[in-house]
Amino acid sequence: MGTTEKKKLVIIGGGFGGLNLAKKIDKELWNVVIVDRNNYHSFPPLFYQVASSGLEPASISFPLRREIHSRKYHGAQYHFGRVEKIDVAARCVHTQFETIGYDTLVIAAGTTNNFFGIPDLEKRVYTLKSTTEAIRCRNELLDRLERASVCTNPEVRARMLTFVVVGGGPAGVEIAGALGELKRYILKREYPSINPDEMRVILVEGTDALLRAMGPKSSADALTGLRQLLVDVQLGKIMKSYDNRCLMFADGSKIYTDTVIWTAGITGMPFEIEGSDVAPGPGARWVVDKLNRVKGLDNVYAIGDIALMTDDKYPKGHPQVAQVALQMGANLAANLSRPDKEPRPFEYRDKGSMATIGRDRAVVDIGKVHLKGRLAWFAWLVVHLMTLLGMRNRTVVFINWMWSYFTFSAGLRLLFRPDKYPLRHHWAE
Amino acid sequence: MGTTEKKKLVIIGGGFGGLNLAKKIDKELWNVVIVDRNNYHSFPPLFYQVASSGLEPASISFPLRREIHSRKYHGAQYHFGRVEKIDVAARCVHTQFETIGYDTLVIAAGTTNNFFGIPDLEKRVYTLKSTTEAIRCRNELLDRLERASVCTNPEVRARMLTFVVVGGGPAGVEIAGALGELKRYILKREYPSINPDEMRVILVEGTDALLRAMGPKSSADALTGLRQLLVDVQLGKIMKSYDNRCLMFADGSKIYTDTVIWTAGITGMPFEIEGSDVAPGPGARWVVDKLNRVKGLDNVYAIGDIALMTDDKYPKGHPQVAQVALQMGANLAANLSRPDKEPRPFEYRDKGSMATIGRDRAVVDIGKVHLKGRLAWFAWLVVHLMTLLGMRNRTVVFINWMWSYFTFSAGLRLLFRPDKYPLRHHWAE
Repeated sequence: MGTTEKKKLVIIGGGFGGLNLAKKIDKELWNVVIVDRNNYHSFPPLFYQVASSGLEPASISFPLRREIHSRKYHGAQYHFGRVEKIDVAARCVHTQFETIGYDTLVIAAGTTNNFFGIPDLEKRVYTLKSTTEAIRCRNELLDRLERASVCTNPEVRARMLTFVVVGGGPAGVEIAGALGELKRYILKREYPSINPDEMRVILVEGTDALLRAMGPKSSADALTGLRQLLVDVQLGKIMKSYDNRCLMFADGSKIYTDTVIWTAGITGMPFEIEGSDVAPGPGARWVVDKLNRVKGLDNVYAIGDIALMTDDKYPKGHPQVAQVALQMGANLAANLSRPDKEPRPFEYRDKGSMATIGRDRAVVDIGKVHLKGRLAWFAWLVVHLMTLLGMRNRTVVFINWMWSYFTFSAGLRLLFRPDKYPLRHHWAE
Repeated sequence: MGTTEKKKLVIIGGGFGGLNLAKKIDKELWNVVIVDRNNYHSFPPLFYQVASSGLEPASISFPLRREIHSRKYHGAQYHFGRVEKIDVAARCVHTQFETIGYDTLVIAAGTTNNFFGIPDLEKRVYTLKSTTEAIRCRNELLDRLERASVCTNPEVRARMLTFVVVGGGPAGVEIAGALGELKRYILKREYPSINPDEMRVILVEGTDALLRAMGPKSSADALTGLRQLLVDVQLGKIMKSYDNRCLMFADGSKIYTDTVIWTAGITGMPFEIEGSDVAPGPGARWVVDKLNRVKGLDNVYAIGDIALMTDDKYPKGHPQVAQVALQMGANLAANLSRPDKEPRPFEYRDKGSMATIGRDRAVVDIGKVHLKGRLAWFAWLVVHLMTLLGMRNRTVVFINWMWSYFTFSAGLRLLFRPDKYPLRHHWAE
């Protein structure tokens, strides 16, 4: 094998899908390059814990160089950069720094927030779709509490202490639960100048149920759990706009708040395409066949959240979760490693889904089995620990969780914000 | 005691001095308020480890509310805010948010960088005097390596890979050593497109020795240690300016570099004073008597780095280190807790000083005893672990250090920089 010339595989994105593909593909056949705008692999299922001061960003991030340039990747390479344009005619991708040619391209760039065209929403809300977004969210939540604690104007104070989460999916439920725990357990002890009743946590969801991707029992349990944590869950509420610190809904109601956490929509990462008219499908996902080949493009694949593969079981595509990305990465790695054999179409093996609401409160659906309470919470904990990359991270996360569990308090309410100069230096532009 | 009316003690700064004072003062006699611009206690001796990706910022930070609002502080309070003005006539301090009255005031605000009036230096260099400065430094160091790894212009690439540390005190020696380790151990493994010889680490010091506050053996050992780590140490070099990415020296030599880490000067945190003409002394430190009373002001004390107490042994004041602040805080707490007794003048008990150069390389001076090498490094490690606030932090730091020690690699080279929106939100202004 060593004598045949290797082909060059470029993977856009070092997330679950891209990294698994890079790890499992035959490096005797392929020179692998992963391009990512961040120099780390991140762990989206726990972004809400960064936002709620439960975990450090470093605990759920792993340096891509350390992973990719280790022995198990046999010479695969990491390149720092955001892919801005894909030139399918010239077979290359352009980042802000360089041009990288490919023989085969895999788009594994994942998703970002969808603001559905609501004017200026992007600038006014906080989001949870990247590590830095979660850090920003944490800082702003802490800022509101600190400023409220020294604020004497009742109107301003009420607005500072009203936290609205938009979207009742796993991210929305999880961050609302974490805020509910803050209100119920932490405020009284650490913010004596704020009466816990002053703090309002509101979760608004447009449809009539939370966690709609899970079973009805999980939806109901999540609702009960959040209400026990003093979260005001409002279902069937369609948000219209957010101007002048006022959130407006389709039913004419409004909420005055300084802090809106937006978890209500995602969309595929955008790229400019040169040399083809093929465009992404619904949700800005690239339409692929059962082999993850992007329809209409040669030698271009898409995997994970950004891929839209439909079949009878998933007429609208697979759920945009880590398991799908991991399995698509593995299947594509197997197919590309056996060029002489018939490629195997992708079949998703659903291992179940879970969401956590708070300490000892979680919901798990595995096939027809439904778990809740402490057992579900423990299952959630184990699964997330095992999926984290790196023993150091697992150890540190485990310690943090045990600490929080027994002290009823996350130890990381730290407002790290630059005093004067931005974190991006003027010379680095 | 419970029947006498308590007096209000306001402490500016929750560092080593202020926190120790708040902990040890008699809370039956005093209502204690700590005001700090950050909501966490930080650990300046390890800022360089944040900058060099050795430790997470959260590992060397402790939420002030969690400490101060715990039982051992008996009702002491934390207020978020930066003190901008002290009104000694009206006996109050003004933050950007509120006015806080006091009966007795303690200035324990520490120091910040001194740029000696060199034009625009502040905007162009990276510094290590706060947690956020250290985070910024880490991000920029990682940015340079990533950008250099995809840069083909030799001139630009050389400038990106030239790292200059200005100042040969402990902070300068420690960060230069960490950069030397990066060059020597990490680059080859994780940045295959950079030849380690391309990376230059230069430490410039204006006087003729490193670590001048320590003994001559420590100075010499630090020099040897840094050179073993491939650091180019240049002594007797006075920096003049830094313009257009060119560092100019008094001897006419120059270095082209994108990255200058400035550790060459500190100065007391500035305040506006109303109601008195008393101003700080040399180094912007408040001149105090042996009881830490600020000369010329009533009911105002200063402790720690920002206090200037001179005597025969310390004609220019005490060294600006944690031990002095801790001991001044404890002594002032004892004096203020026994108002009926003769106050005890402050006497500094020098427990020794230490600096680390790298793995298994450190220098320690305790009285006339000098240690170096692995033993000194181990002593340094134990002392710093014990001084950290919080068992969680100690545990996590210990794990990180052991991990790095055995893998020859810090696991935290993570470039967390906002994509689009700044970490400070527009509505938070």
